[in-house]
Amino acid sequence: MNKKMNLLIFSGEYDKALAALILANTGREMGMDVTLFFTFWGLMLVRDPDKLTLEDKTLFEQMFGLVTPQGVEDLPLSKMNLAGLGKKMLLEMMEDDKTPSLTDFLNGARKKGVKFYGCKLSVEVMGFKEEELLPEVEIITAQQYLEDAIDSQIQLFI
Amino acid sequence: MNKKMNLLIFSGEYDKALAALILANTGREMGMDVTLFFTFWGLMLVRDPDKLTLEDKTLFEQMFGLVTPQGVEDLPLSKMNLAGLGKKMLLEMMEDDKTPSLTDFLNGARKKGVKFYGCKLSVEVMGFKEEELLPEVEIITAQQYLEDAIDSQIQLFI
Amino acid sequence: MNKKMNLLIFSGEYDKALAALILANTGREMGMDVTLFFTFWGLMLVRDPDKLTLEDKTLFEQMFGLVTPQGVEDLPLSKMNLAGLGKKMLLEMMEDDKTPSLTDFLNGARKKGVKFYGCKLSVEVMGFKEEELLPEVEIITAQQYLEDAIDSQIQLFI
Repeated sequence: MNKKMNLLIFSGEYDKALAALILANTGREMGMDVTLFFTFWGLMLVRDPDKLTLEDKTLFEQMFGLVTPQGVEDLPLSKMNLAGLGKKMLLEMMEDDKTPSLTDFLNGARKKGVKFYGCKLSVEVMGFKEEELLPEVEIITAQQYLEDAIDSQIQLFI
Repeated sequence: MNKKMNLLIFSGEYDKALAALILANTGREMGMDVTLFFTFWGLMLVRDPDKLTLEDKTLFEQMFGLVTPQGVEDLPLSKMNLAGLGKKMLLEMMEDDKTPSLTDFLNGARKKGVKFYGCKLSVEVMGFKEEELLPEVEIITAQQYLEDAIDSQIQLFI
Repeated sequence: MNKKMNLLIFSGEYDKALAALILANTGREMGMDVTLFFTFWGLMLVRDPDKLTLEDKTLFEQMFGLVTPQGVEDLPLSKMNLAGLGKKMLLEMMEDDKTPSLTDFLNGARKKGVKFYGCKLSVEVMGFKEEELLPEVEIITAQQYLEDAIDSQIQLFI
């Protein structure tokens, strides 16, 4: 049976998302089963930037949808963001080293068969519709997350 | 033997506390043994807001006790706190969805028999007295934490 | 066979570094094998403050090397840093309790045989040279990290 890695993605930040997706891609390349469970701010990683809707949402949900990052390239750094300056610097350094972008790692994970789960409670509270998320994302409960995590050799909270 | 989950709660933030306590409650409902080890800022989650004392503390410990959040509802968000605006928005959205509050999840964990441990070193450095914490909290060392964590199927650093 | 603990150190903050290094020291004292994998901001923990170089770096890498913390005592707090005031307060409280400093815990980990690994991709993107890091640090890939982590009883993302 394959080894399993389960990453709970709580943070909606560019650098932590990079770390998570590099691990996810590497795990799949090594033949591991990899699960990403997106909850709270982590859901920002799996919003489809072209599918924002305001329909059938409360006013707070509409505002929340508009002021939060839409799509991974829009995520801030967890530190040294400096109104985007630090992030620009990191992106330049990544480009200099010909490192793939966060979008590349995200698309790599989608193509390689990483499992994408969204947290039911978070999606409901934040008012996201399933059709606003990437098509790979399946909505599951905290219980389903734990059932998956308990059978994994590696679990991390990111 | 029951499956075990061990969560190290380092962060003293409303949203991360919600994530941790939802996992703790869910784990207990599934029949798992659940341990929460509160260290550093995580201790803010288990202060009893009615039991602040200034006695037998250094000046720094007194100041620290006064400027840090007292009780879970007082915790800030890890991001988008915006001087409390973002948190108010999240609380409104939670209420709209009839999601239980952080206090409800904390009390649920206490009633369901989640084990509450406080980090000895952190308690000493921050100058908290055991009687300032919730009565469920038992003070243990880092070694006792590791002994518990190593027998758990899930460990997360939150 | 010894029990194993594997800590991925992503954050470059004083308080999180303290937590990680206290766990690492304690684990070693209990006879566990302990691995620290430093990635992204975590690399700030293993820079040798006396060995900063600007040679053979792009302009961004030079700037990045200069504006980021050099050596562990230079790291900020993850919260309540308050331009250094909160950190000063924490350091005073630690001293009052005769708690060892972060440098002490770092040197303890080095002497006790904790394994220090640096993330190859991060080192390359940030433009750090191997000679700018502590001599204990060995550069490894994400795949080598995962191979080590999967055999560990405890893995945490800090």
